[in-house]
This record gives sequence, structure tokens and C-alpha cells, in this order.
Amino acid sequence: MLSEQSGPVAGAGALLAILRDGQARTRAELVQLTGLARSTVSQRLDLLLNHRWIVPADDAISSGGRPAVAFAFNHAARVVLSADLGATHARVAVIDLGTTVLAERTADLPIERGPVPTLEWLVETFTDLLAETGHGLDQVCGVGVGLPGPVEHASGRPINPPIMPGWDGFPVPDWLGERLGATVLVDNDVNIMALGEHWAARPEADQLVFVKIGTGIGCGIISDRRLHRGAQGAAGDIGHVRVSSAADVVCRCGNTGCLEAVAGGGAVAARLTETGVPAENSRDVVNLVRSGNTQAVQLIRQAGREVGDVLASIVNFFNPAVIVIGGDIAEAGEHVLAGVREVIYSRSLPLATQHLGIRTSELGDRAGVIGAAVMVIEHVLSPGAVDRSVR
Amino acid sequence: MLSEQSGPVAGAGALLAILRDGQARTRAELVQLTGLARSTVSQRLDLLLNHRWIVPADDAISSGGRPAVAFAFNHAARVVLSADLGATHARVAVIDLGTTVLAERTADLPIERGPVPTLEWLVETFTDLLAETGHGLDQVCGVGVGLPGPVEHASGRPINPPIMPGWDGFPVPDWLGERLGATVLVDNDVNIMALGEHWAARPEADQLVFVKIGTGIGCGIISDRRLHRGAQGAAGDIGHVRVSSAADVVCRCGNTGCLEAVAGGGAVAARLTETGVPAENSRDVVNLVRSGNTQAVQLIRQAGREVGDVLASIVNFFNPAVIVIGGDIAEAGEHVLAGVREVIYSRSLPLATQHLGIRTSELGDRAGVIGAAVMVIEHVLSPGAVDRSVR
Repeated sequence: MLSEQSGPVAGAGALLAILRDGQARTRAELVQLTGLARSTVSQRLDLLLNHRWIVPADDAISSGGRPAVAFAFNHAARVVLSADLGATHARVAVIDLGTTVLAERTADLPIERGPVPTLEWLVETFTDLLAETGHGLDQVCGVGVGLPGPVEHASGRPINPPIMPGWDGFPVPDWLGERLGATVLVDNDVNIMALGEHWAARPEADQLVFVKIGTGIGCGIISDRRLHRGAQGAAGDIGHVRVSSAADVVCRCGNTGCLEAVAGGGAVAARLTETGVPAENSRDVVNLVRSGNTQAVQLIRQAGREVGDVLASIVNFFNPAVIVIGGDIAEAGEHVLAGVREVIYSRSLPLATQHLGIRTSELGDRAGVIGAAVMVIEHVLSPGAVDRSVR
Repeated sequence: MLSEQSGPVAGAGALLAILRDGQARTRAELVQLTGLARSTVSQRLDLLLNHRWIVPADDAISSGGRPAVAFAFNHAARVVLSADLGATHARVAVIDLGTTVLAERTADLPIERGPVPTLEWLVETFTDLLAETGHGLDQVCGVGVGLPGPVEHASGRPINPPIMPGWDGFPVPDWLGERLGATVLVDNDVNIMALGEHWAARPEADQLVFVKIGTGIGCGIISDRRLHRGAQGAAGDIGHVRVSSAADVVCRCGNTGCLEAVAGGGAVAARLTETGVPAENSRDVVNLVRSGNTQAVQLIRQAGREVGDVLASIVNFFNPAVIVIGGDIAEAGEHVLAGVREVIYSRSLPLATQHLGIRTSELGDRAGVIGAAVMVIEHVLSPGAVDRSVR
């Protein structure tokens, strides 16, 4: 804390942190807010202006004498390149510092093609999108990537990802960083979805659990407004929690009775097929639910109950303010949610459910790209990083 | 952050925070560490010396010229009054700022006697213990109390505590504060045990789950080295998570199938009695286990498995670094632990259990009083509170 105050330009980042709430402020207001000398505030504002982190605001404030100039955070100062790579499809975007999507593209892109072809496509797509928005690589302050598997937080490398052949240990940040010339942050897809949903839709919640129900089932956890990764970065892996109704069903992890083996999109599709309604994956299931197929509706509601059973324990243990249900299967909407709510309200403690919100994702399939951008923005706008950027 | 720097004496607390690691430092070292002017450091050190927060250290450091005086945090600057009130017995202590127990007393004290008789006894016992250690009330910097039920964090009042008739909403901090003339902090017993165990035995762990198995079952959660209370302060209530083996057992909470109804001390005692081995409570069960009664050993190991089943889900969800098992039943030691480990290692994900420690409490039945003292110490030694204390 104290060391932040020591260098000659230190503190510009702290000043920018104050302005990030979106409100414009005059020099005098900043002097009052920080307790710093007027000359120090002026010097720091000049640095931030020179580097375009702030702009003079239109709404100059008059206090009797000549109007004072106010300064505001500049959302357009830089752009972030953001990618949400799923098992079979990808969403890529150029996003500004206020998390506004400036350009985006989606594509069918099987992750099992391996790291080099996938990342080559990614660089090409980023380049196209940047051209669309009229930005150059020099305006990119960072790159955020979500991957459908476990990622080592410190290095950004995938670790033993079950559905990503060839990706184990691949140095994604180095590979992309060399080609794009910017900092690259990588995390698993559920973590970035939780970040995106919290930032955009529930910033006031101290605790949020984002549950992705697709082929697999996992969750991203916000604790004290920050991502909770756990001791080994393995937090949130609820797909392999044992549920009693699945006692003898074998899961792809090698264990039996896992939640994913009865409530994942693949499991529901297989059960539907058994009952004579052909379905291959989550999307088929959701389409059948939407078309009103009774068996599909029943099965999806039951899947919601199975997920609810696991979440009921999590509500007692963690006492979140909000549970957000996302992923392909969440697109079946109220039917899944009804099953989840039914079990949570019957099994969790009244004190913990009294004000609990259980909702579907507001960002929908954009949660991942928004979240990957949030991850990058928080990193590059940390006071220390801003201080270094203006040196 | 910046506002901490604004007042004339602000920053004494930040200086003390540096010295709390136990290492003595010279004026010159503190100037270098903080980047503050030598005169500012001197002024702040004088304030801290005047208020006895620091003392000149014996190990004055010579650097060629005349030896420089080093300063160290003074553990004896103040004392904390600490109480762990359980359902049927109490532990009370006078503790210094380094969490050394200076005097303590235990007593049989049924919490159901109600707040006034209990707290009157507490004031009397605190007074006796202070006299024993030769301290006056003016040297008490705060009072920490653990209660066996839910406590509203902001007010320190019990909320609908199931086994504490007469305590609902009782203003414990006000009542004790008037009589003892110090700040009073109250929390539930499992939270303070988690704090104590983390502080004393596992300070390096970012995430720790402390599980108390007694008549009831609950846990205290350390996340990012701080207590995680959850959105309604209800986090950690795992005693009422459904376990499949207990499907039709009625719990005192009114639901069926709760963990506590099959693995709590009362439930195990009742099952033992049914099999012809009379036992009334957790202590009887532990005594039977210690005396080698086979039925008791079998049942306690099975109780460990039931707890392990719930913890296996928590390991997948939360990925803690350490799980600590405490409470009466933990005194049955390896038998409970064996059951817990058996299920966690068979059910949780390899990545999450790879470095997971599963251990019994190191502080044992002192975890509560140490933890209540830690809660108070962290409060009164926060930089802002120290700044206010030296004004």
C-alpha cells in the first residue's frame, strides 16, 4: 500500500481507479477525494491525459467563477481482444474498456482440431475484426481467452483437459502474445462466464455462483466480488459430484453416479433417444423442449432437479446471493430453472434461501466473451499496471 | 486507500501492520520500507511507543556507527477477553496480542440457562481471570465471544438459535460492553474455531474448511485468508445437507435425510443405545470408542463416511487446501478421520485432492477461545483502528 506512493508517477493508477465509476470529476474534487496536493493531482492528470486513459468531459462544472474542466475515464482508450472457445464453437470479439462489444464473430470450430490450427484461426479472426472496427494492434491492451477445460492460472496453460486433445500444457499466452504483441490471459470458460455475468448483470452481489449446464456441468464462483479458483485452481467442478439417483451410471471420468452422467446435455440426449425420441446433443434437447416435446420437457425438468440437489448443498455451505444458470441447456429456460428451484427451496435452509436469486444468464452466450474482456480490463487497469503504462 | 494518508497521525497503524510480523526494525529500515520521510516515521513511532503498541527491541542493530535502536510489536500492549460458550460447557480466557493464553477456565454451563445468568457468570469469570494475570479493565482492548448458534454479523445478536432459548435477538455486545467498557465482537462457535485454527496452525493456507462434529455438525470457511460468511451470514451450515443413507430419518430441523440426523453425536449415541450399548451424547460415544467398543468404532467410522460424502462435494466445489475436523467427535481421532478420508479420496476429483490436507484440529478444544481472540485482535489492530487509538 505504502510502496504505491513512492515513485514519482505512482498514484496515476489510483486516480484512474477513482474515475472508473464513470463519474466525471474536476481537479478540485480529485484534490479533495485524495488528500493529495493540487500540483500532484495536476501532474498525474496530465500523464493520464497524455496516455488517453482519461478525456476532458463535456459536462464542465461551473461553481460561480469560470467553469472548471471535469475529467472522465476514456472507455475508448484501448480495446481488448476476447475469445470464448467452446468444445465445438467459438465466439470472438473486439471489446472496449467499458465492455461494449465493438465487433464480433461466431464460428463452428471443434477444439479437438488442436492448438495451432485453432489459434491461427483466432489470430486471423482478431485481425479481421480489428480492421472492421478501425483499430490497430497498437491499441490492443490485452487478449482474453476462455477454454473448455482446466487451465493453470499462473501460466495460462491447459492442464489435462479431457476434451482437448493436443492442448495439454500448450503455452497459449506465449504463442498468442508473440503474434499479437499484447498480454494474453487464459482461463476456463466457466470462470470467465461467471466474471462476465457478475460484472454486467450482478455487480452488487458479493457472492455469485454461475452454473454452466451443457455437455458437461461446471460452475464459476465469485466470492467477495472476485473469482474463487481454489487451492489447485480446481474449484467449481460440480459435474462429478455424486447424486443418489445415478448410483450405477458410469461417467466419462471413470467414477459412477456423477451429476454430469445424468443431467449433462449428452446424458439427457441419450435418455431421450432410448425413449424413441432421437437426440444427439444439448442443442437437439433444447430444440425438442422448445417444440413442446413432452418427454424432453420431463427429462429436462428432472435434470434441473438433479442439478438442484447438488446446488442445495452448495447453498447451505456457501450461502451465495445469486445463482445464475447458463450454458446450452439453460436455453430451455423455465423448465430447467423450475427443477433447480424446486429442490433448492425444499432442501436448503430458510435463512440461506430467503433472499437467494436463482436466474438464467442475462448475457446468454455472450457471457464468455464479456467475461474474458473483464478479466483483461481488471488486469490492465489495476493501479500498478496503469502506473507502469504512463512511465 | 488514499484517505488513510490524509490525517496528521494517519499511518501509525500502517507502520504497526509492518511490525506485526514479529521482526524488529530500525527507523532507517522503516523509512526504506515505507518511502516516508524520516521525520514522519519518527513522529509515528513516537505515537506507537507512547501508546505501548511497540517497544524498543533488545536486538539493537549496529551498522558500523553507533548502534541503531530497533522497534518491535509489543504483544503485551493489551489483553483480550475471550469466551467460547458451547451448548453445555464454556471456556473463558485472557489472551495477549500474540494469542498466548495468559489464564483460562472451563466450566459446565448450559447455554439454555439464558443470556443474563450466562453473561453475568462470564463477567465475573473475566474479572477473576484478569485479577489472576494482574491486568486491569483499562488494559482490555476487546472482548470476543463465540456462541453455539447463528449470529447476525453486524449486530452480534443471535438469530433464531435453535438450542438457545431466551437468546434470540439478545444484544450481547451492548450488555457486555456496558459492564466491561470495551468493544465486544460475537460470532458463532464454528466461525471462531476456523479463525483460530487458521491463525495458529495453518496461516499459509488460503482456503481452509473447519468442520465441527459434535451434537450438531457445521463448518467455518476461510476463503482468501478471511472468514467467508455468505450473503446472509448462513455459510457453513452443512449439518442439514441431504445424505442418501438417511433418506427417511427425521431431523430436528423438520426435514428428513439431514447429515446431522445420521452423523451427529446425538444420532450416533442413539444408534449405539439401540444396539444395546447405552450412550447419551458425543462424550459417551468418544469414551466408548477410546475404550475399544467395536460397535462404537464401527458407528463412528460410518459417521465419518457420511461427513466425508458431504465434504467430497465441497472439495469439488470449493477446492480447499486443508480440511480440519474438530468438535467433540473429532476426539475419537483416527476412526472418524479414516471414514472422512475414505470417501473424499474415492469421490473427489484427483486434481482437488492431490495436495489436500485432511487433519484433526491442532488447537483442539482451545480453537474457539484462540479464534475469538484473533477476531478481536484483527479488529483492534487494523490500521484505521490503531490510528484512532493514538489520536
